[in-house]
Amino acid sequence: MQQVVRPRRAVDPADDDLGALIAARRPGYSLPAALYTGAAAFEADISVVFHHHWIVVGVEADVPEPGDVYAVDIGPTPIILVRDDEGQIRAFHNVCSHRGAKIVPSGRAIVGKLVCPYHQWTYELTGELTGATHMGLDFDKALHHLQPVALRNIGGLIYVCLSNDPPEDIAAFEAIMGPRLAPYDLANTKIAYETDLIEEGNWKLTMENNRECYHCAGNHPELALSYYSTDLGFDPSELSDEEREQADWLSAQYAERTALWEACGLPSSTVNNVVGHPTQFRTQRLIIAGAGESQTLDTRAACRLPLSEEVATGSGDTHLWTVNGWNHFMGDHAVVFTVLPLGPDKSLLRTKWLVHKDAVEGEDYDLANLISVWVDTNREDADLVRIAHQGAMSAGYRPGPYSRFTERTLDEWSTWYVERMQAHGYGV
Amino acid sequence: MQQVVRPRRAVDPADDDLGALIAARRPGYSLPAALYTGAAAFEADISVVFHHHWIVVGVEADVPEPGDVYAVDIGPTPIILVRDDEGQIRAFHNVCSHRGAKIVPSGRAIVGKLVCPYHQWTYELTGELTGATHMGLDFDKALHHLQPVALRNIGGLIYVCLSNDPPEDIAAFEAIMGPRLAPYDLANTKIAYETDLIEEGNWKLTMENNRECYHCAGNHPELALSYYSTDLGFDPSELSDEEREQADWLSAQYAERTALWEACGLPSSTVNNVVGHPTQFRTQRLIIAGAGESQTLDTRAACRLPLSEEVATGSGDTHLWTVNGWNHFMGDHAVVFTVLPLGPDKSLLRTKWLVHKDAVEGEDYDLANLISVWVDTNREDADLVRIAHQGAMSAGYRPGPYSRFTERTLDEWSTWYVERMQAHGYGV
Amino acid sequence: MQQVVRPRRAVDPADDDLGALIAARRPGYSLPAALYTGAAAFEADISVVFHHHWIVVGVEADVPEPGDVYAVDIGPTPIILVRDDEGQIRAFHNVCSHRGAKIVPSGRAIVGKLVCPYHQWTYELTGELTGATHMGLDFDKALHHLQPVALRNIGGLIYVCLSNDPPEDIAAFEAIMGPRLAPYDLANTKIAYETDLIEEGNWKLTMENNRECYHCAGNHPELALSYYSTDLGFDPSELSDEEREQADWLSAQYAERTALWEACGLPSSTVNNVVGHPTQFRTQRLIIAGAGESQTLDTRAACRLPLSEEVATGSGDTHLWTVNGWNHFMGDHAVVFTVLPLGPDKSLLRTKWLVHKDAVEGEDYDLANLISVWVDTNREDADLVRIAHQGAMSAGYRPGPYSRFTERTLDEWSTWYVERMQAHGYGV
Repeated sequence: MQQVVRPRRAVDPADDDLGALIAARRPGYSLPAALYTGAAAFEADISVVFHHHWIVVGVEADVPEPGDVYAVDIGPTPIILVRDDEGQIRAFHNVCSHRGAKIVPSGRAIVGKLVCPYHQWTYELTGELTGATHMGLDFDKALHHLQPVALRNIGGLIYVCLSNDPPEDIAAFEAIMGPRLAPYDLANTKIAYETDLIEEGNWKLTMENNRECYHCAGNHPELALSYYSTDLGFDPSELSDEEREQADWLSAQYAERTALWEACGLPSSTVNNVVGHPTQFRTQRLIIAGAGESQTLDTRAACRLPLSEEVATGSGDTHLWTVNGWNHFMGDHAVVFTVLPLGPDKSLLRTKWLVHKDAVEGEDYDLANLISVWVDTNREDADLVRIAHQGAMSAGYRPGPYSRFTERTLDEWSTWYVERMQAHGYGV
Repeated sequence: MQQVVRPRRAVDPADDDLGALIAARRPGYSLPAALYTGAAAFEADISVVFHHHWIVVGVEADVPEPGDVYAVDIGPTPIILVRDDEGQIRAFHNVCSHRGAKIVPSGRAIVGKLVCPYHQWTYELTGELTGATHMGLDFDKALHHLQPVALRNIGGLIYVCLSNDPPEDIAAFEAIMGPRLAPYDLANTKIAYETDLIEEGNWKLTMENNRECYHCAGNHPELALSYYSTDLGFDPSELSDEEREQADWLSAQYAERTALWEACGLPSSTVNNVVGHPTQFRTQRLIIAGAGESQTLDTRAACRLPLSEEVATGSGDTHLWTVNGWNHFMGDHAVVFTVLPLGPDKSLLRTKWLVHKDAVEGEDYDLANLISVWVDTNREDADLVRIAHQGAMSAGYRPGPYSRFTERTLDEWSTWYVERMQAHGYGV
Repeated sequence: MQQVVRPRRAVDPADDDLGALIAARRPGYSLPAALYTGAAAFEADISVVFHHHWIVVGVEADVPEPGDVYAVDIGPTPIILVRDDEGQIRAFHNVCSHRGAKIVPSGRAIVGKLVCPYHQWTYELTGELTGATHMGLDFDKALHHLQPVALRNIGGLIYVCLSNDPPEDIAAFEAIMGPRLAPYDLANTKIAYETDLIEEGNWKLTMENNRECYHCAGNHPELALSYYSTDLGFDPSELSDEEREQADWLSAQYAERTALWEACGLPSSTVNNVVGHPTQFRTQRLIIAGAGESQTLDTRAACRLPLSEEVATGSGDTHLWTVNGWNHFMGDHAVVFTVLPLGPDKSLLRTKWLVHKDAVEGEDYDLANLISVWVDTNREDADLVRIAHQGAMSAGYRPGPYSRFTERTLDEWSTWYVERMQAHGYGV
């Protein structure tokens, strides 16, 4: 079925006038509707954001051994992650140089070489074409290798950029996050569980939803257990005495814990490189509430094998936001979320739960306990993303005001989006 | 799946050249195909017809009590009907002023206040915003109320207009239909049954299908029982002696009955305000055939409790057509049909059967008997709408001639459509 | 869901700039991606290829008797094949001249007249309108007959052209194929089995897939049994001694067999009218490997009743390719494939297995044995078409080099496509 068009008011720019839509965005407010709902905006997002920025697509544990392949689709563009025989992780376009067929089905496989099923063109794990029959003596295989995709393995998170001219500030991201992720030793984790959830909304609504916790108290009873409510932002004029007391106490706690973390070799200051940074990210180390160990229903560690000895000495939740993902790294496990666009109103949220590679299910961790909080939280968020998209489709939608206390990060997000679109020629 | 495009002949305007398509419409003939099938025409229909005209969306019985909410979607635009604590029915955009989320799921609910599930912004039933945390002391709630939608309750039928400048001739419609609907006392009815049927065709084909009964003899054996065949229009040159006799007899019957109806205080003359009227409608009072009481399989009343004492004294079927609906009001029950567009080739037909609010199912009426005729008739019509749309998709489609005896109302319908599109700047 | 857009590189023409895309096609290489994936290219294909060329839609056995109707949809345009009372096969648009409804559901029926279900307008099998009530004395039925579609019955294959100005070189096709098909006496066959397979790819990828057998060895174990591998094209520099021996032997075999076939009255030279021919086709007579009788798993005849005495005397596989179909005519049965576009990424492959009309299932042929090879082969090909389309959606797709030994026919196919688009005004 064709999508029902979103009606406009007379004052709105046309849905395909991206320049005017970008120019119409008002600081402090959410985006004009058609930037969330329109086909033209979606096409531009694929082109600008997903094809010219560093995108998280997986983790080292997706390809633990030489010959392991992980095929993932960035919108319509399928790529392959493969660990070659030297142990290096490489990325290629998942498209044969002959007739353009997709070589490996989406998902995981173990291969000796990459063989296209269509006509058996055969590529080494380095991308080199070594087999292609019937092409004649003058055919130069060296010109028909797999097309490489830029890749950075940053502390076990795999980032790729489809552009031939990737943003250079990945170096700054690496310099900051490398040391922060190192203690979690992600190279020695395994994927204990993975879920795919298709959210019925624009990918930017999925990202905005994750970037604020204003909605958490009313929607996420499970996740809320591991947060102090005043840690999620607040309007100081609204605090009750009890809340103010908690806020002050928490502030003191952070001072104390940060000193402890830094002493353990766990860098913990907040970094908020969003506005003005092509490779945007934000990281902070959060105190976990309750028993203080992990994002579980009892806030205790779900896995008795820590990710590393180093992190076992200092609790907390290292939070990392990037353009299409978010992450929680804790002493006992990590949760890695990637968002990939499927259509203007459809996005894939893939969630991976990582534990130490030697941890044994049923002995070192109970799987249901490990995944419970985020399985529920994801489902709750998917409902919110759906109604946010439905509202954005309406003639009654108007960009609304972000709270400067609990949604400042969204203002930064939308400002970043406008900046990046302008940097690629829209609305300037 | 993307919709297969409709091929054009060299002489046809392009599917997105609405001006040329509108200009190409020939009086007496159905519309150029792309006005039924094209994405551009659909977008214009949403904008011109559904966002700038009075649209029927429900009945008083959808929100019988204070706090009752009925959420309905006009294409992509969700609205809320709510009865406030003073008993007044109000309409709002079903979109939160904060982050634009759809507040209430489509359908019916009972609420104290309207609370957005996303961040719990809270609105009174008057639309006033009374709760919004974290927005700061300088935040003016009065600027962020729910956006009202123009609403008229005409004899228990609820019309809304999404435009800020609704057509003024709603007053003429109200002046004529108010007194005609008053005797049915719809405020004191309940919805005995409701069906949603998705028709695989353009909404205008659904409307055209209902506006003629040329197709009834061959397709609606159930409905045909309650009509005299000569009451559906005829070519006088084709009448058999028997049919002419019936036509003459029926004509005499109408003279007699009309006098009776008027004497009972039931205004009964036909009003046909279509061409030239933004708020188009047609009403007439029909004699029911057979036992003459109701549109049932035995043409007897389905409900022994009349809608009101007044209508119990005069039988007949008050027929009302509006731009996106049709209605049958009879002594014992009423059937209200609303058509809402879902896509160029997909429309929602919602049908409500109303009986006196005190009628008890199983005692005062048998539900199967009440709904049988129109459940079957709707299904039959959906088949016809589907094949009409399939034909309009074809390169072999040509606008065809309307019968001037049995399809004059369609010529008026299509003329009205062209007029309204021209009034909004297309094809002039 | 809306289709995810295919991302472009900066150097690529826009997806809707068909002229630039056509002009960008490089000889020896597959097409620019958007010609396979884009909505604009699909619309042009429907208009240029499917509405202005001769398209195969069926066989005589689809309408064996007067009153038999076969309704088939060429993209969005439904047509009717009908055998009239004189035994002539006619084609009409399957659209009523009144309100444009599709008259006959897709598929087969037996009728006395063609009666539109909407208002019972009634047409003779010649297309003449003989019944239309309520239209008035001045209504001229002669102006409202069914619209005829150009049709050629060539040796039992039914070709239609939706244009009023069909390519004239159908005469050359008929002159060559008529005598070659005559021995198979298709008029006296019946459809033993028919399958519909929806392939998730552009129709041109379906056609390209069929036009080369480079992929056969790796994908079609069943079909490969009835071919000599060196009969599928090869790079001479790659042949092993054994393969060269086979190639030489096969070449001698062809000389011998061709003489035998011609002596039996079976014209057997290869004709390759693709580039430069609006009504493109290629025909050749192939030697069947193994037992040499038929495309079955044991390469023996599947049906003991031959299609005719004439072909029973000379084995072989008469292969015919046309713009939207391919065919295998063998001594005991024939398989006829038609490809009809459903969307940019969706195509219908309809396959009919024909045997002598007097053959009795279970006695003269075992159905499973008859259809096995091509049921499997079609399924395997559908997988390849799907991954070819997925790859063409990618930003990583580049037009790839066709093998000049085993894919020369694809180069001709793509050249023909470019020629025809240019002939209709694109890219010149």
